[in-house]
Amino acid sequence: MNKHSIKEIIFFIFLTLIYYSGFSQKINQQDSTVIKQVFNASLNEGQSYQWLDYLSNNIGSRLSGSLGAELAVDYTKEQMQELGLDKVWLQPVMVPKWTRGAKEYSYIETSPGVTSIANICALGGSVPTPYGGLKTKVVEVKSFDELKELGREKIEGNIVFYNRPMQDNLIQTMHAYGGAVGQRYSGASEATKFGAAGVVVRSMSLSQDDFPHTGAMSYGDTPEHLKIPACAISTNGANYLSATLKLQPNLLFYFNQNCKSHPDVQSYNVIGEITGSEYPNKYIVVGGHLDSWDLGDGSHDDGAGCVQSLEVLRLLKMIGYQPKHTIRAVMFMNEENGLRGGNKYATEAKKKGEQHVFALESDAGGFTPRGFSFDTSDSNFDQIKSWETLFEPYLANRFVKGGSGADIGPLKNQGIIKVLAGLSPDSQRYFDYHHAANDTFDKVNKRELEMGAAAMTGIIYLMDKYGTDFTN
Amino acid sequence: MNKHSIKEIIFFIFLTLIYYSGFSQKINQQDSTVIKQVFNASLNEGQSYQWLDYLSNNIGSRLSGSLGAELAVDYTKEQMQELGLDKVWLQPVMVPKWTRGAKEYSYIETSPGVTSIANICALGGSVPTPYGGLKTKVVEVKSFDELKELGREKIEGNIVFYNRPMQDNLIQTMHAYGGAVGQRYSGASEATKFGAAGVVVRSMSLSQDDFPHTGAMSYGDTPEHLKIPACAISTNGANYLSATLKLQPNLLFYFNQNCKSHPDVQSYNVIGEITGSEYPNKYIVVGGHLDSWDLGDGSHDDGAGCVQSLEVLRLLKMIGYQPKHTIRAVMFMNEENGLRGGNKYATEAKKKGEQHVFALESDAGGFTPRGFSFDTSDSNFDQIKSWETLFEPYLANRFVKGGSGADIGPLKNQGIIKVLAGLSPDSQRYFDYHHAANDTFDKVNKRELEMGAAAMTGIIYLMDKYGTDFTN
Repeated sequence: MNKHSIKEIIFFIFLTLIYYSGFSQKINQQDSTVIKQVFNASLNEGQSYQWLDYLSNNIGSRLSGSLGAELAVDYTKEQMQELGLDKVWLQPVMVPKWTRGAKEYSYIETSPGVTSIANICALGGSVPTPYGGLKTKVVEVKSFDELKELGREKIEGNIVFYNRPMQDNLIQTMHAYGGAVGQRYSGASEATKFGAAGVVVRSMSLSQDDFPHTGAMSYGDTPEHLKIPACAISTNGANYLSATLKLQPNLLFYFNQNCKSHPDVQSYNVIGEITGSEYPNKYIVVGGHLDSWDLGDGSHDDGAGCVQSLEVLRLLKMIGYQPKHTIRAVMFMNEENGLRGGNKYATEAKKKGEQHVFALESDAGGFTPRGFSFDTSDSNFDQIKSWETLFEPYLANRFVKGGSGADIGPLKNQGIIKVLAGLSPDSQRYFDYHHAANDTFDKVNKRELEMGAAAMTGIIYLMDKYGTDFTN
Repeated sequence: MNKHSIKEIIFFIFLTLIYYSGFSQKINQQDSTVIKQVFNASLNEGQSYQWLDYLSNNIGSRLSGSLGAELAVDYTKEQMQELGLDKVWLQPVMVPKWTRGAKEYSYIETSPGVTSIANICALGGSVPTPYGGLKTKVVEVKSFDELKELGREKIEGNIVFYNRPMQDNLIQTMHAYGGAVGQRYSGASEATKFGAAGVVVRSMSLSQDDFPHTGAMSYGDTPEHLKIPACAISTNGANYLSATLKLQPNLLFYFNQNCKSHPDVQSYNVIGEITGSEYPNKYIVVGGHLDSWDLGDGSHDDGAGCVQSLEVLRLLKMIGYQPKHTIRAVMFMNEENGLRGGNKYATEAKKKGEQHVFALESDAGGFTPRGFSFDTSDSNFDQIKSWETLFEPYLANRFVKGGSGADIGPLKNQGIIKVLAGLSPDSQRYFDYHHAANDTFDKVNKRELEMGAAAMTGIIYLMDKYGTDFTN
């Protein structure tokens, strides 16, 4: 070995360092300057909070097929037009319509005439209770396995009470949700197999309070005449019911709900775009879902994601950035109970052969952004991860591989996109409000919302600049 | 060069990697397991939130010298005793006593009889207005430089209105506070130099709302008879006053406040400790301040830090960890308007020759922990930074060099400690509540508080295990 070899070794070490620094030679001071401009603009002269104020306080809840949903379509379309986007249009989509009807009512009867109120709400998509309500005995279970073990003998004619809590010690609350939400989604169809008369599900919340949390449920392939009513009970109510059951196993649970499924109705995705200067036929999508559940005003889920997506386009224009790709903001309709908007968007994109470079969704609440979750190949992710350093000054530099968003998922499933991402806000408070009457505007902090919008804009900018590199 | 040299090169690279991995060979799987246990215990069976509930809702505000402060001393002492600590005691300290008196009243008069209410509160330590209140013209300034430029001619006999806002685009809100709080602290003493009759200061808040925020102010060496009354006005009020002044420069501002300074009174730091098994005479301190301002119930500032510090000792006991050093929780008295408790603790520690290995303070709100700020030498910090990886699963792994906490600062100033730290929670919402009537229990999220307590316990555990290494 000679001196030449030492040079080679040093060169090899140099290459290794370059490699492990994740291609970071690509991003530069200009990128850092642009992202700083974006954050300054969002925090000093942002519009997202004002838009959310209107959406939440002037329009309110926006369940698919409701008046609120249609008002929100009109409003966001108008706001896009006011932004002076190059193109704004409505993409028609038929959506399911389910209405809650008169407010639910429920009580626990420990002996004739001795009752206490329980806070419940019908699960989205549930059938109503029989005329006059349903009153019967309750069987508490923590899992579908437990349900099977009890079998028809113990279940038939009774109400099944699913009471497995979300796990407190999971740091990412989305994981705690994932570990419990099966009870809500499939609880009724599973209980039906053993002849249950109805189901009551512990609310998907990490907070101990009196708010029942609704959300989508499915009867699977249960025949119409076998469908049983399903409701959520507040966490305080669930604890009370469980404790009371231990003392009085024969207590009766009464509930009355008046919800109803209607034929599909016409609705829309709202789309606005800035035409790309170099690749007008290649698309970058940023979006949230415009529909919400009907109990609160859907500020965190997902008014926040919608106004942040609008703000991305506004901020790009505000700093005078002319994108190379066409950048679309999409207000998806019907994420909560059908995903019709997301599916429609992807189907149309495929039909038209629209090449999609990147899609980003914000649907985890308007809280302090911690980073992004990317759904892409390892090699693409390695390169994207080298951008983390640009987000360090904003404490939004946690880039991980993982899921993206429900509404943009169909773009991946239909094979027309290689890079998707979801904004990852702080998750600790999300399930305190999710799908409940307290998901309201006052729970959103202006700065947290604006920082999320700015972080999203930063990623869209970088994807516009470097996204064409992601070919696998 | 021969093969031997290649080995040397490889060995050198190896050493370099070890060096840049920041001594991480020291922490091990056991540490990871302990920290996991701590988080599980805090989130599944925590006590901090219940303690804070009592402190906030049963005791309430705790300004030095108030009944609330004394009740809080008794309560936290009792709770320490119930934890079965090895030693619990009160450390006497004389504290200033300032009372607000009857609620402040203020209005803006644009012409005789045409008035609108302004939301104000006296600044802590201010003198009252003259009997019947003060009504005079207003001069708005954004800085002390501007004040000097205007000079006595424009200022004399008028109210100076300091209206420089906290900067929205600073990501760490503490920096925005630092850039504006001089107006509150020194505004009166500066204005006095030019013969002002009083001062009104824009509230130190990043939220646009109706809450005035109090906080400490100082007259410096202003003679008693020249002291002028000082109040804070809500951000909405400040914007209104500023806009109205542009239209009507001769408007009059009236305010009436009835605050008063009294002679010092007896109070206490509350201290509890677990005796160290190996180094009973070496101390690790974890604390917060028990006093608060009088407007809210001081949940974030700093009830949170107090209950988290108690929780550190409880969690260590709960997981069966026997510390090597003596670990003390200290509820410092009088951080807000005197720092007498912090000074007393350090003075006593010095007098007794108590060797202090580490001190940690939580005084930035009970929000999601993002990491810690360490005040120590570069070489100590390099080693501590290698622990970041242990906090990554809890997203609390942002370790930076910086300040620690006001109450533990005197330990450093008196030269009896080499390593100090402060918990760094998410800072976006802190100044919405800081020193205002809306710093209340409902603004604290249980999980966020508990995660902070767990992160603190993790650092205390690591310092107990490895802290003796930090000798410079």
